[in-house]
Amino acid sequence: MKPLLVLLLAAAPLLASPPDQDPRGDTTTTALLARALESKGAWQVAQHLTDRIGPRLSGSANAERAVEWTAGTFRSWGIDVRLQPVVVPRWVRGAERASLVAPAEQQLSVTALGGSIATPPEGLTAPVIEVRSWDELRALGEAVRGKIVFYNRRMDPELVAAGRAFAAYSHAVEFRGTGAIEAAKLGAIATVIRSVASHSLRTPHTGAMRYDEAVPKIPAGALATEDADLIERLLAGGSEVTMHLLLTPERLPDVESANVIAEIRGREAPEEIVVIGGHLDSWDLGTGAIDNAAGVAMTMETMRLLHAMKLTPRRTVRAVLFMNEEFGLSGARRYADEHPAGTHFAAVESDAGAGEPRGFVTTLEGAALERFGARLDLLEPIGANGLASSPGTGADTSVLTRAGVVGFGVAPDNTHYFAYHHSPADTLDKIDPRHLQQNAAAMAVLTWILANEAGPLRESEP
Amino acid sequence: MKPLLVLLLAAAPLLASPPDQDPRGDTTTTALLARALESKGAWQVAQHLTDRIGPRLSGSANAERAVEWTAGTFRSWGIDVRLQPVVVPRWVRGAERASLVAPAEQQLSVTALGGSIATPPEGLTAPVIEVRSWDELRALGEAVRGKIVFYNRRMDPELVAAGRAFAAYSHAVEFRGTGAIEAAKLGAIATVIRSVASHSLRTPHTGAMRYDEAVPKIPAGALATEDADLIERLLAGGSEVTMHLLLTPERLPDVESANVIAEIRGREAPEEIVVIGGHLDSWDLGTGAIDNAAGVAMTMETMRLLHAMKLTPRRTVRAVLFMNEEFGLSGARRYADEHPAGTHFAAVESDAGAGEPRGFVTTLEGAALERFGARLDLLEPIGANGLASSPGTGADTSVLTRAGVVGFGVAPDNTHYFAYHHSPADTLDKIDPRHLQQNAAAMAVLTWILANEAGPLRESEP
Repeated sequence: MKPLLVLLLAAAPLLASPPDQDPRGDTTTTALLARALESKGAWQVAQHLTDRIGPRLSGSANAERAVEWTAGTFRSWGIDVRLQPVVVPRWVRGAERASLVAPAEQQLSVTALGGSIATPPEGLTAPVIEVRSWDELRALGEAVRGKIVFYNRRMDPELVAAGRAFAAYSHAVEFRGTGAIEAAKLGAIATVIRSVASHSLRTPHTGAMRYDEAVPKIPAGALATEDADLIERLLAGGSEVTMHLLLTPERLPDVESANVIAEIRGREAPEEIVVIGGHLDSWDLGTGAIDNAAGVAMTMETMRLLHAMKLTPRRTVRAVLFMNEEFGLSGARRYADEHPAGTHFAAVESDAGAGEPRGFVTTLEGAALERFGARLDLLEPIGANGLASSPGTGADTSVLTRAGVVGFGVAPDNTHYFAYHHSPADTLDKIDPRHLQQNAAAMAVLTWILANEAGPLRESEP
Repeated sequence: MKPLLVLLLAAAPLLASPPDQDPRGDTTTTALLARALESKGAWQVAQHLTDRIGPRLSGSANAERAVEWTAGTFRSWGIDVRLQPVVVPRWVRGAERASLVAPAEQQLSVTALGGSIATPPEGLTAPVIEVRSWDELRALGEAVRGKIVFYNRRMDPELVAAGRAFAAYSHAVEFRGTGAIEAAKLGAIATVIRSVASHSLRTPHTGAMRYDEAVPKIPAGALATEDADLIERLLAGGSEVTMHLLLTPERLPDVESANVIAEIRGREAPEEIVVIGGHLDSWDLGTGAIDNAAGVAMTMETMRLLHAMKLTPRRTVRAVLFMNEEFGLSGARRYADEHPAGTHFAAVESDAGAGEPRGFVTTLEGAALERFGARLDLLEPIGANGLASSPGTGADTSVLTRAGVVGFGVAPDNTHYFAYHHSPADTLDKIDPRHLQQNAAAMAVLTWILANEAGPLRESEP
């Protein structure tokens, strides 16, 4: 981050540097970084959550095990911890099968979207109609009636290659949440989307969908991209394509789960909170390694390091392992309801995997962005000193950042993130232990800097 | 292929060049290459076999559809074709599920190896014992009794990156064929191997296994590499690992299928055969695109081009679409039984996918290798002019080459071949249409050169 370093030097008199600050940051921060980089703590957390607990779908027994284990681990480290009750949905995946019955019999790789209702027990069979935009859907009108709507939009591989995988995802995922509602309005009997994936080995990717109580509910699945390609080719060749779809998930009554909240109380301004965290729940197909054992591991490792090094910050550092990011953000909302945005100095979220460190995104902009970016220069040796402006820095902290809290998101290289995300392939082997620990070290350093920052992060604030 | 070009020039007086030979090959060969590179014929064959027929497991209805469609297509082109009866096994995959029950409940991604017997209908549950070599298995001795033997050998990623994927495969696949026999001798109740794969998204890879009638038969599966990694980590951490395994395949009575044999009769030496081909059957998990619709497509496209261009070679060119390469080579054996090796001038096989063209492997060696390699210079513009010596040039033609017939194998870049091979991910999208056609063009050119070659391919032959 050379340009920012220049700005830092130019702006140096404006900074309230502690007396012991050296060019790489103050000696305490440097020591924290060094200790963090020697640790294997983040890996141990990620391994336990994935290998020893496994998938942690909101409302599942494994999610409760994860709550108990993470809370118990904080406690065993001597860190104050409490559980904040959160109501979560209980949705249980069942059988899932799809096949083409015309123009050729072909098995398809399918998974139910999270929240989908079941098909009839014997499945349903109907012609497939392909849609690439909402306009196209609406233009089809009555032609949709009685059919399976196939939403077919790719992740743009050029955006992924350019490091903008989240932008490619946002564009491609458009139909997942409300596709079943819009198709049902026109009389469709089911929907399938092309899995939102940057790479596939016949791998289906799930994710949340929702219904509108005023519109008939229809089942919703996701096909592996290969099977989406197959249907696309058959339709392009002029064939009528007929699909059989069987999904038997069940929606059970909501259950009570919890956010896990651990705290290291600040010594000078304990009422000002730097909240850090990531979601503890995961999808059920894989073991939720990159999404989001990685973020939980970075968060817990940050707390462990601060506590183990007896670093008491000016402000309070509060770690929140949010329940139910994936299935409606009820943990995030519950947290924000009980902890007004105004009590927070900053919010740091980790929910973007554990690729090679690149640094962070933040809601800071302009001069404030440049000024704070320079504070991260000591992370340059691990490549984690990047700081880029973004309106979104994480889903669980979005309630806070929309209310004006300065947000930060751990933002490692994401080239491969959407090859694994929400799929059976999201397993521990997809994490490089060194990258995970480097990201944890970066999160710890950022947290420590924020918790000790002398002045406001934005110029305009008092 | 610069060094060979130098050798060619040095050896030029030894070559019996036809009068019309120019530095890029004779004009007919050049015209064949040009026409081949303009065609989309190979893609059309590959697409029909995969999209319109689908998986073509020996003994299945789809395999019979493939026999009928390829024979009918040859006939529609005006090429003589016949079916050679071949007896093949009939094995039908059933349910397949595996999970860990200790030290944590975890779903595993498993597939039955081809030919495996079923577990009891309710599955079986037993401790897992890890083995990395035959010596290790034998050293364990009685410790194996009552257990599930987990053969855990990786494909070497460095070999794959170095272009030696088939060597990496050969080393890693060692336990698949006879692992159940050796484990059963020691009292094991089932076996699972690490899928033989260079890349995985929780993707299980099947393949043939066999039994010894003198040894109890036990079920055999393959785990996705991620699940092999999981078990490896748990065992390395000191845990006892217990697995539940359910496989319900069925072995039905053998059925009659066929090799598809098409011929263009030679004008001067019709009794000398250049046989070209690849296997028509595939595994059942994917649609058999790279393995081996690609090889069938190259073979059929070679025949179509020769016929369409009215190119009648000196020798007879015979295309064989072999049935049952994957499940015991019965088509290859039947072919060799009826067509003695001595009637063959050369055998060209395509069963290594359709990656970026690189050229061929051959059983030729030394001066004969160098001399013939130079004949391929006209393939340099598409990168298909490589010729490397190898004892094996294809499974279906191995009966012939072991009997002394000169063998050639289409050998494209294989970096990604074992990411798809024998897995659900072996689908048409894994083939680049341009690479497929370039490899088909190379096969056509090689076939034409061989069918017109003036002298013997080996110095020592008459």
